[in-house]
Amino acid sequence: MRIDIISVLPELMESPFKTSILKRAVDKGLVEVHFHHLRDWAINKHRQIDDEPYGGGAGMVMMVEPLDKCISELKSQREYDEVIYLTPDGVTLNQKIANTLSIKQNLIFLCGHYKGIDQRVRDLHITKEISIGDYVLTGGELAACVLADSVIRLLPGVLNDEQSALTDSFQDDLLSPPIYTRPEVYKGLEVPKILLSGNFAKIEEWRHEEAVRITQEKRPDLL
Amino acid sequence: MRIDIISVLPELMESPFKTSILKRAVDKGLVEVHFHHLRDWAINKHRQIDDEPYGGGAGMVMMVEPLDKCISELKSQREYDEVIYLTPDGVTLNQKIANTLSIKQNLIFLCGHYKGIDQRVRDLHITKEISIGDYVLTGGELAACVLADSVIRLLPGVLNDEQSALTDSFQDDLLSPPIYTRPEVYKGLEVPKILLSGNFAKIEEWRHEEAVRITQEKRPDLL
Repeated sequence: MRIDIISVLPELMESPFKTSILKRAVDKGLVEVHFHHLRDWAINKHRQIDDEPYGGGAGMVMMVEPLDKCISELKSQREYDEVIYLTPDGVTLNQKIANTLSIKQNLIFLCGHYKGIDQRVRDLHITKEISIGDYVLTGGELAACVLADSVIRLLPGVLNDEQSALTDSFQDDLLSPPIYTRPEVYKGLEVPKILLSGNFAKIEEWRHEEAVRITQEKRPDLL
Repeated sequence: MRIDIISVLPELMESPFKTSILKRAVDKGLVEVHFHHLRDWAINKHRQIDDEPYGGGAGMVMMVEPLDKCISELKSQREYDEVIYLTPDGVTLNQKIANTLSIKQNLIFLCGHYKGIDQRVRDLHITKEISIGDYVLTGGELAACVLADSVIRLLPGVLNDEQSALTDSFQDDLLSPPIYTRPEVYKGLEVPKILLSGNFAKIEEWRHEEAVRITQEKRPDLL
């Protein structure tokens, strides 16, 4: 997989991609991540990439020309499965979308900033608009990191224990059951006896019941 | 505001807090962010903080003792409004939750990792469980960055243009209307005439209608 990330603040995304699972995936050659500083496609020597909105109002708008040039250049080099704009207006990211994207080859992530991008960029290039949730962030950079993480961890070979991804929350539309590790008793709080029983069929049954109970209690909308 | 972030991978969060709005908020003294490496409260010289789950199964569990010690030490130093565990099992973050947290004084964010934390940490300390969305991430670190960003940008004095936060998506339960900036025509695509009219009452009316139309089309659940 190859992901091209276009941003006015690529430096914001440095540490997440240099740490942990994302770093391992890159080091193993399972994914290539390329950052593109939008100002490299600026329209003038002031490296301008944004301007005031037509019709007035607060905030700046990312101009169509630098974005069009940058995306067009990338598209001239290879075919992209999706050109994704990270924006609170988009479809809300969920595990199914992450699963679907994890089998693609080439993706562009465009990080919005300021008030957003000129509508004509959407009209010309964007094939998918994704929001990571119903809240506003300073920019699309953290959203791009979140999307990349949710997708890259699903690539075969990225997680050490492949089974682990399949038992995660959301893969079966249930939240996880309670989990415990040593010690058996901590400040008077005990591990449920069933988990110490060694009866794995009963344990799996208990875990499923707890997962259903917790989902019913916290997120009935998932059932 | 003071935010204490507990993690096994604090280095993952370096660049987001050293860039852009979060950096400015820290530099201006509007927020203090302290990172705590959980291994500093490990139970032995191997710096162990996780162990296998009781009852078997894939993935490791973050132990109760290091987390209890770390959180207890912080609590002995000041009062916290909330001890928040970032987990896919939590209440889904939205703008209202971000708004509510933005008026608090002291917050702890606990980043889950591996299969999650021993249930007894939840029983002992956690006052709020927050998910940034219905997808699984490698760890709670990116979720902590997202939550911090959504909250910190609301603190008075953080954004340059305070009006900007109030006209964001979700603050009025409507998505944003289309926005445009120079040039008026790009590759044959024109800016809507109304935005060039100078009639600001009409422009506001058009923007409201477009915001309602777009919300109806993309996110009828918000209306």
